Amino acid sequence: MSVISSHGPIYPVILSGGSGTRLWPLSRPECPKQFIPLVTDRSMMQETLLRTLGVPGFEPALVVSSASHGALVREQVAALNHMPAAVILEPMGRNTAPAIALAANWIAKQDRQALMLVMPSDHVIADVPAFHAAIAAAAPAARDGRLVTFGIQPHYPETGYGYIAKGDALDADGVVHTVAQFVEKPPRAQAEAYLAGGRHYWNGGIFLFSAGVLLDELERYAPAVAASSGHAMAASRQEDGFILPDETAFGASPDISIDVGVMEKTDRAAVVPVDMGWSDVGSWDALWAIRDRDGDGNSMKGGVVSVDGVGNLIYVDGGPPVAMIGLRDSVVVSTAKGVLVMPRDRSQDVKTVVERIRGGALV
Amino acid sequence: MSVISSHGPIYPVILSGGSGTRLWPLSRPECPKQFIPLVTDRSMMQETLLRTLGVPGFEPALVVSSASHGALVREQVAALNHMPAAVILEPMGRNTAPAIALAANWIAKQDRQALMLVMPSDHVIADVPAFHAAIAAAAPAARDGRLVTFGIQPHYPETGYGYIAKGDALDADGVVHTVAQFVEKPPRAQAEAYLAGGRHYWNGGIFLFSAGVLLDELERYAPAVAASSGHAMAASRQEDGFILPDETAFGASPDISIDVGVMEKTDRAAVVPVDMGWSDVGSWDALWAIRDRDGDGNSMKGGVVSVDGVGNLIYVDGGPPVAMIGLRDSVVVSTAKGVLVMPRDRSQDVKTVVERIRGGALV
Repeated sequence: MSVISSHGPIYPVILSGGSGTRLWPLSRPECPKQFIPLVTDRSMMQETLLRTLGVPGFEPALVVSSASHGALVREQVAALNHMPAAVILEPMGRNTAPAIALAANWIAKQDRQALMLVMPSDHVIADVPAFHAAIAAAAPAARDGRLVTFGIQPHYPETGYGYIAKGDALDADGVVHTVAQFVEKPPRAQAEAYLAGGRHYWNGGIFLFSAGVLLDELERYAPAVAASSGHAMAASRQEDGFILPDETAFGASPDISIDVGVMEKTDRAAVVPVDMGWSDVGSWDALWAIRDRDGDGNSMKGGVVSVDGVGNLIYVDGGPPVAMIGLRDSVVVSTAKGVLVMPRDRSQDVKTVVERIRGGALV
Repeated sequence: MSVISSHGPIYPVILSGGSGTRLWPLSRPECPKQFIPLVTDRSMMQETLLRTLGVPGFEPALVVSSASHGALVREQVAALNHMPAAVILEPMGRNTAPAIALAANWIAKQDRQALMLVMPSDHVIADVPAFHAAIAAAAPAARDGRLVTFGIQPHYPETGYGYIAKGDALDADGVVHTVAQFVEKPPRAQAEAYLAGGRHYWNGGIFLFSAGVLLDELERYAPAVAASSGHAMAASRQEDGFILPDETAFGASPDISIDVGVMEKTDRAAVVPVDMGWSDVGSWDALWAIRDRDGDGNSMKGGVVSVDGVGNLIYVDGGPPVAMIGLRDSVVVSTAKGVLVMPRDRSQDVKTVVERIRGGALV
């Protein structure tokens, strides 16, 4: 920790604007998955806050969320007895570049040199010491003006993530590397080659850079984002403890990710590989993989009677109790809003269900 | 119908004492399956009433049910605008022989010669004209003192039913036969032999006999049943339109089926084979088999989104809507009390679930 704190203040910036539906029926627009205690007794948003809360070298966190989730953020932050540095509520979603730019503007007003550790609010990190070690390794490079992304050590050839190819080592320890290439979601064979080659990492969307450098690079590569976020923060209001950026100014921002807007263009990108039990819990299958399971490979939550089940996730939260007979490698979710049943390997198709429901089914 | 009516009055006697749980979570002790609109928009109890309601030759029906279901019976009978001859509420369940004996006592007080057509309240009969024809064929034999059971034409080697082997023909048409043997639930190979042999029928628990003959045979083969039911009806009370047999007298009755108590012992048994689209809807799989299905073999009721499903029964009644992806030959039931998920061929194991719930699971 002293390694972290020796490099000046780091502001955790927690991005909580997502409204993912891949965990329907549990995750819904009014309560996305970062606010749900999916893996532990705390929500992933709370777990994300706890990764830096009270750790030497870290300032209180900034949370960037959507206007419709302000009450949820307040409640979940308060439950940790935590006073965040700021809670910024976006008037509308504009992807990660504008969200990070809002936080960078706030931090730069305190200290342009200060580092910001950008973290999605809905990822699991099982090995927090490994994460802290990676931050400590990345901090000198970030202080030197690098935009550091953390490259997640892949353990299987996932085709649903972007990859980062590392280039030359930048530090004496050989931990920080230049970025040779950002790669979009690859086909299966390519993902397998990446895994075998040992130079590719998953792009987990976790970053460390100084607020001033980020704003400079935004100015250079995404000037419309820089301008709209700057104006939105300059004209922001304070209300009920929230910071509300100006809606008109922010609405003028393009919808663009930090990867596309800055990371893939800047020559200051660096990558720090890390193996830390990371998961984006991007599907019911992914949730099954990181939850505790019994000797038959079943993970069960809530009122469940299981007869002859193997390899299932049975998740009851607010819905009727579930009795399951003879299922194998399946997912059953019971909520008050809906019941989902499928083989685990169809987890990516939940989006089809959500589309049909939005199209009018079940309404 | 004139064939039926030419043989004097027939009282339909509907046995509605069952509290089956093989269709959990839909069927539960407080609302057994005969009261649920499982197959059509009417309950099976109502469908059973309608099979003789207004048909020439049939008197209004007697319903024998349990004290805890009196209100349900009243409501469902009233919905048909039907005035039954009598609704007898058993103070406790004592199996079919005592239940039938109660009705026989009531009918014999009107007319010992009158026939009674005993029907379980929770069976489906798709081909009612075939049923009526079988009754017409059976009526002369019943009038002559036979206890006629209807032998259901088997279409597959079911191991969960008792079988009836027919003996010699008793009438000129070769329809009514003596009973060569009643057989308990057979092993698979034996059931297959029965099916191939063409002399065995399923024992569907549907009977035609005169009230007086039934009481005589009870007196001979099950005197304790005859005595207790006689006393219970002699000391019965009328309340709210129900007939309430005396509890102490009825409670003294042995718990015994009409098959074991009378049919397997009497030399007056006869069987009339009938092929009438019969089902006892004894499992979720059986319900799937008799419901309408789409081109992919799916039968769906209530709010359902189905993606790539084949051969499934998805049944939503009072529970959250169900989204199902990629299931094959499975059952999903959603009620407010519970959700059930299993392959269709595990339908017989629902009883295991119910036992576990009674043992304290989910409570």
